[in-house]
Amino acid sequence: MAKDKKLVEAITAMDEDFAQWYTDVVKKAELIEYSNVRGCMIFRPNGYAIWENIQKELDRRFKETGVENVYMPMLIPESLLQKESDHVEGFAPECAWVTTGGNEPLEERLCIRPTSETLFCDLYSKIVHSYRDLPKVYNQWCSVLRWEKTTRPFLRHMEFLWQEGHTAHATSEEAEERTIQMLNVYADFCEEVLAIPMIKGRKTDKEKFAGAEATYTIEALMHDGKALQSGTSHNFGDGFAKAYGIQFTDKDNQLKHAFQTSWGMSTRIIGAIIMVHGDDSGLVLPPRIAPTQVMVIPIAQQKEGVLEKATEVYESLKGRFSVKMDDSNKSPGWKFSEQEVRGIPTRIELGPKDIEKNQAVIVRRDTREKIVVSLDNLADELEHVLNTMQAEMLERARTHRDAHTYTATTWEEFTDTIENRPGFIKAMWCGETECEQEIKDETGASTRCMPFEQECLSDVCVHCGKPAKKMVYFGRAY
Amino acid sequence: MAKDKKLVEAITAMDEDFAQWYTDVVKKAELIEYSNVRGCMIFRPNGYAIWENIQKELDRRFKETGVENVYMPMLIPESLLQKESDHVEGFAPECAWVTTGGNEPLEERLCIRPTSETLFCDLYSKIVHSYRDLPKVYNQWCSVLRWEKTTRPFLRHMEFLWQEGHTAHATSEEAEERTIQMLNVYADFCEEVLAIPMIKGRKTDKEKFAGAEATYTIEALMHDGKALQSGTSHNFGDGFAKAYGIQFTDKDNQLKHAFQTSWGMSTRIIGAIIMVHGDDSGLVLPPRIAPTQVMVIPIAQQKEGVLEKATEVYESLKGRFSVKMDDSNKSPGWKFSEQEVRGIPTRIELGPKDIEKNQAVIVRRDTREKIVVSLDNLADELEHVLNTMQAEMLERARTHRDAHTYTATTWEEFTDTIENRPGFIKAMWCGETECEQEIKDETGASTRCMPFEQECLSDVCVHCGKPAKKMVYFGRAY
Repeated sequence: MAKDKKLVEAITAMDEDFAQWYTDVVKKAELIEYSNVRGCMIFRPNGYAIWENIQKELDRRFKETGVENVYMPMLIPESLLQKESDHVEGFAPECAWVTTGGNEPLEERLCIRPTSETLFCDLYSKIVHSYRDLPKVYNQWCSVLRWEKTTRPFLRHMEFLWQEGHTAHATSEEAEERTIQMLNVYADFCEEVLAIPMIKGRKTDKEKFAGAEATYTIEALMHDGKALQSGTSHNFGDGFAKAYGIQFTDKDNQLKHAFQTSWGMSTRIIGAIIMVHGDDSGLVLPPRIAPTQVMVIPIAQQKEGVLEKATEVYESLKGRFSVKMDDSNKSPGWKFSEQEVRGIPTRIELGPKDIEKNQAVIVRRDTREKIVVSLDNLADELEHVLNTMQAEMLERARTHRDAHTYTATTWEEFTDTIENRPGFIKAMWCGETECEQEIKDETGASTRCMPFEQECLSDVCVHCGKPAKKMVYFGRAY
Repeated sequence: MAKDKKLVEAITAMDEDFAQWYTDVVKKAELIEYSNVRGCMIFRPNGYAIWENIQKELDRRFKETGVENVYMPMLIPESLLQKESDHVEGFAPECAWVTTGGNEPLEERLCIRPTSETLFCDLYSKIVHSYRDLPKVYNQWCSVLRWEKTTRPFLRHMEFLWQEGHTAHATSEEAEERTIQMLNVYADFCEEVLAIPMIKGRKTDKEKFAGAEATYTIEALMHDGKALQSGTSHNFGDGFAKAYGIQFTDKDNQLKHAFQTSWGMSTRIIGAIIMVHGDDSGLVLPPRIAPTQVMVIPIAQQKEGVLEKATEVYESLKGRFSVKMDDSNKSPGWKFSEQEVRGIPTRIELGPKDIEKNQAVIVRRDTREKIVVSLDNLADELEHVLNTMQAEMLERARTHRDAHTYTATTWEEFTDTIENRPGFIKAMWCGETECEQEIKDETGASTRCMPFEQECLSDVCVHCGKPAKKMVYFGRAY
């Protein structure tokens, strides 16, 4: 058994060192490998397959709302980046610059896109002329690059994968509607598919996107009580349109600037899946996002008839689930460990005694519950188990989050909570950036969002005592 | 009618100026828009949707052969690129170099990937240790960048989209098998889905990939008689493995170098679709790759009941085909033109008289044939039309290619053909690079491939008269 346990033993316990646990899981589940370029990571097959499933599901949801996909160049001329002043100020320090092409120095240096607002604006300025050309609801799946100082797998890479939607509308109302619509697409996707409950709200001015009028966010709570910003949706008003000259002739024959939005979700969300659902044995993937939902593992496979029966079971499940069979020469215990580390939601154990009784054992990855089922209705039972698991994982995550969401009406309560009870803190805030910055400096807690569901916890700001304007979720964040 | 014809009239006739016809189609079908960076193009929704369909279909075929997808960094350190000498010599002149990150100059400059052999090799050197770790059959979908002097939509961009497969194997035989297997995947895909017949063969040493032992290619003939290399598959032997240190302990306990392959198909293939199937009215998309297969166009839609019936028809087709309805206020003639320019394979015309007779008219994009069908079995009829069209487009392309494939056994025949009858020329060749270069210098025709199906046309080289070693397809190429 010693050998069988090696995989699991190589993972640091969560409670001992959460950061090391995270790194171990990423490595042992073979999700990420480090590359030769600092901060650039390799998405290995197990990691990339999760992203492919995220793409498939999100892309379908996007297209149902009328989104069209495009692909824009990865290089942005410096002069184009500079047209919107807040935007360039926010991103220029993070740019990687191309200065030589072929063997020649370039007249103007080119930035590898840190985000593509400027390119979409430039395109819209060329192809939008009349209200009939609106709305434009474009999206692209691509990688972007930001010159980060410190990086961590999934959570912060120099180069990461994402989608970025960019839209243009004839009215301010329509832009706001689209901004909220896409935030809801993200939140619903995370709850229904990733089993991660989200707090929806608006970012403070300090935390909003460079160049945006309003940034909306979905925020999740990780197992260690830290917050993770999981997706954002920005309303630009007509600020970018003015900077980039996106004008159209409206129905009333007046020349107007378009109203714009942008919204993105990245491979960072895979970090959330790991840190919300994982345990000391490794990754735990919700069935609806798992590249492999069930691993068939024959027991005593050298005995007559076992492999044949296991293959029969595997074949019978293939059309309905994403299923694999591990008929390698490794011991069953080793196979269990591998399936567990990789977070495959269920395994089906099938040995000579099971076959005798016309049964199999379904083992849930999250609870380790063993469910003995008849082979006659294995597929239906499996579907039931996967659905139950999906629902219970969401419930468990919600319960954990709610149990780690605190309220503070005094500064003493606030500091005591942040030090001793990691989680979200709901508290009242005066609305001033200076006060927000002081809270962060003193406690390390930032404003996560001003939630759509406001409560009045008190009349005064938890920090400065001035009249309160908003209830805010605070937290230490990744 | 003048206005209705505007779209079509804006397209130069093929026979008048093929290059201009091509550019016009790309522009009028809204496939590509030029960006602010020279040679970097924007894939607009109509263009990108074709690529999405190509990806979906190719990716499915890849996975059926055991391919796993990954994602590698876009930046390659200069020192890593330099490890394989042929490879760096081939690609260094085309590299874009990042020299500044954030605001700091870099110690070592980084190249934006022109291709990713070096990164895959580096990964394999870390994760391949034993024969049990082999084979590795990885692929990535990404963009690559090559600093080209002249560019044309789809055919040659600085940045283009592609997939690049990279594999490692325990034996030379297995690597060769995989190389040919992937070439066949490409050829089958092109014939079955894109309706483009391919010549399969091997590249000469002069034309092979930088660092490869053997490069295999599929070559297509465009409408103007020029050749287009449409996909390549390379056998690297153990050359890269030696340069990058990819070693494994084999079953016999000996340390050996792995054998490798790589293979790619790019957005260039969209250029082939345009130039093989297009006509003077614009794009013609084969039904199996068309993002929209049928456009429902109501005639006299202001009349009572027309829009209702058209909507009913549209709804009835939706699950089975990719269908759109054009119920805008434009005239039917204008709608026809738009559907034709965009290459949508069929339209369904439905007017008051049709409704009276319980019928609709299916119009084929390629032949313009009008097929009157009963509304009672519209879907079956449409499927039949689409299948017939797909098959006939392939046949037409094959007939065109065969009619423009010539043989030359004397140099006079060769030069006469190349000047007066654009197409493929089959001819015998001595196998010497110097002679090959002379042929190219004198005629502009390059060796496209040494086809798998060899014929003996004569005993001597068509150019130098030395003993012939191979029959070669020659042609002027894009």
